[in-house]
Amino acid sequence: MTYEHGGDIYSQRIQWDFSVNLNPLGMPERVKEAVRRSADFCACYPDSLCRELVKKLSGYHSVLEEDILCGNGAADLIYQIAFADPLKEGWVLAPGFSEYERALVAASARVHPFYLKREENFSLDIDGLIRALKEEKAGEGRALFLSNPNNPTGRVVSGKEIRRLAGFAEEMGIRLVLDECFLDFWEGEEEDSLIPHLKGFPHAVVLRAFTKRYAMAGLRLGYCITRDPLLLDRMARHRQPWTVSVPAQAAGEAALDEEEYRRKSDRVIREGRRQLKDGLEKLGFWVCDSQANFLLFQDLRREGRDGRLFFRCRDRGLLLRHCDNFHGLDKSYYRVCVKGEEENALLLDMLKELTAG
Amino acid sequence: MTYEHGGDIYSQRIQWDFSVNLNPLGMPERVKEAVRRSADFCACYPDSLCRELVKKLSGYHSVLEEDILCGNGAADLIYQIAFADPLKEGWVLAPGFSEYERALVAASARVHPFYLKREENFSLDIDGLIRALKEEKAGEGRALFLSNPNNPTGRVVSGKEIRRLAGFAEEMGIRLVLDECFLDFWEGEEEDSLIPHLKGFPHAVVLRAFTKRYAMAGLRLGYCITRDPLLLDRMARHRQPWTVSVPAQAAGEAALDEEEYRRKSDRVIREGRRQLKDGLEKLGFWVCDSQANFLLFQDLRREGRDGRLFFRCRDRGLLLRHCDNFHGLDKSYYRVCVKGEEENALLLDMLKELTAG
Repeated sequence: MTYEHGGDIYSQRIQWDFSVNLNPLGMPERVKEAVRRSADFCACYPDSLCRELVKKLSGYHSVLEEDILCGNGAADLIYQIAFADPLKEGWVLAPGFSEYERALVAASARVHPFYLKREENFSLDIDGLIRALKEEKAGEGRALFLSNPNNPTGRVVSGKEIRRLAGFAEEMGIRLVLDECFLDFWEGEEEDSLIPHLKGFPHAVVLRAFTKRYAMAGLRLGYCITRDPLLLDRMARHRQPWTVSVPAQAAGEAALDEEEYRRKSDRVIREGRRQLKDGLEKLGFWVCDSQANFLLFQDLRREGRDGRLFFRCRDRGLLLRHCDNFHGLDKSYYRVCVKGEEENALLLDMLKELTAG
Repeated sequence: MTYEHGGDIYSQRIQWDFSVNLNPLGMPERVKEAVRRSADFCACYPDSLCRELVKKLSGYHSVLEEDILCGNGAADLIYQIAFADPLKEGWVLAPGFSEYERALVAASARVHPFYLKREENFSLDIDGLIRALKEEKAGEGRALFLSNPNNPTGRVVSGKEIRRLAGFAEEMGIRLVLDECFLDFWEGEEEDSLIPHLKGFPHAVVLRAFTKRYAMAGLRLGYCITRDPLLLDRMARHRQPWTVSVPAQAAGEAALDEEEYRRKSDRVIREGRRQLKDGLEKLGFWVCDSQANFLLFQDLRREGRDGRLFFRCRDRGLLLRHCDNFHGLDKSYYRVCVKGEEENALLLDMLKELTAG
């Protein structure tokens, strides 16, 4: 059981973890308070249908309650989709989040990577993707997994383009699993989300999570929204009834009230993204244009090819996300999350020192 | 998505919930405190390998750390076993816990019920079960799901008999999934557990949970122990990396220190079990001899056949577990958990009143 993600702060001494893409403001105080209060209600089984939370989510996204299914983090739902459909063929972006592929393999599905090009700034060529999907023969159990913005590149696809792709998937009977876990850090969230348009695309299912937005990765809470009631029913049959804990449900309900926190974090991320991008470029790194709360960059120095920057930072207590286990990337690439101004500056200073001379 | 278990206190007004089999002492105060403290550490992803918890469990059970896998409740692990092996045929006891069958169906496995007989007090006839298993043709992907003590009957199978069954399963290449989630309420736990003998039975996997023992159902924490490293590896590949939340890991670590609580609850359960059994029998119910923290009883009155006792209790704010969705039982059967002396007396008083004249 090898661990291939960021955030493993349990086996090493880390002071600054830039390897996971969590909100730099930390978990809101009122959400922490909800977790503390929930301790008195943890003896009982959680509500298997998360009724209160679903009601609030329904209001938050203006969707029907019956179109929502909560899970033990969005990652949990990825596996349920793969098992429930069940999937036989799955397309994933390369580079992209590795759990899609891992879930497809677990469900014995064939994985087709669609490579994004560095020379195109890793932006998604929708026409190319549609052509690639057309080339494969039709049939049941096909899915396209996409995160918007994409992880680890941070590139967003516009709502208009996403709807074009969703329309094509609809025609072809392809399940579109659209992971919008990072979309709420993006200023254009409203225009670019598929959620308000799901009615026209019953083959699409949108994933969302509290994990990053509210920095509550440790609580495990995600959800999906779809107009395909059969999919949700099958997903529920492929899992235990009590997937979402009492503290996670309480935290989720509290988090949705955090309007001021969301506004503040939008500003911090917007400013921090620019600060980091400018700073990294000034240091001579290639930086992928990002619309997320993280940045992919490449060490262009000849001596940067062996990925030593990761280890040198780690030795000083700072964790980067090394990217050589992403398809299409190598040891010269790193991903860092956007944090507050001071921490971003600290990262830039450390990188400057380590790459100087 | 229909809900078919006890404990749905979220859709009805319930003051006394006898439908779920939780420790009547409630969650230990120090475990609650661990949950409250954990709120400050929920921003980060949980340790995907639950290293600290596994270390403590390894000491508690005197087993190797690498033989343990934690999950989001034991129910979570049941599905992972079904998907990981993957199972094609599964034997379950009838009546028995319905999640085994549900998981088998989810994994597209055929389900074979083995009926326990009321006239034998629902005790398990190991020889009969072995004969039934022998009749089916051999092959990969076969499993026997068994809880010891069995739910909802509360009947325990002795350690000696379990080892005989495990030996047979070993010979036949049948996966034995032995759910010991209720065994730690039983005085004979030490003699009857398969855990100390797992070395000889690599096809066996034992399930345990914190849920009932420490009344922490809302936190979701279970684990399994097996000497089959391949099974654990496959299970881990059939799920997301972060199944166990930060509060659940913290609570589990704290719970294992609760020696005094365990001693006290053993006494309460032993006395309460006798109190309830005697009381129910005095009221004219048939009561199954139980070695667990719950009791199965039957309303023998002619007018008791329609299950009205459930609704009449519910109207007064007391929840029984109706049993007509267990194979082999009908509306005249109920399951109640063992609580403290006062609450047990309250249950008996209410039943007396409702069945009088």
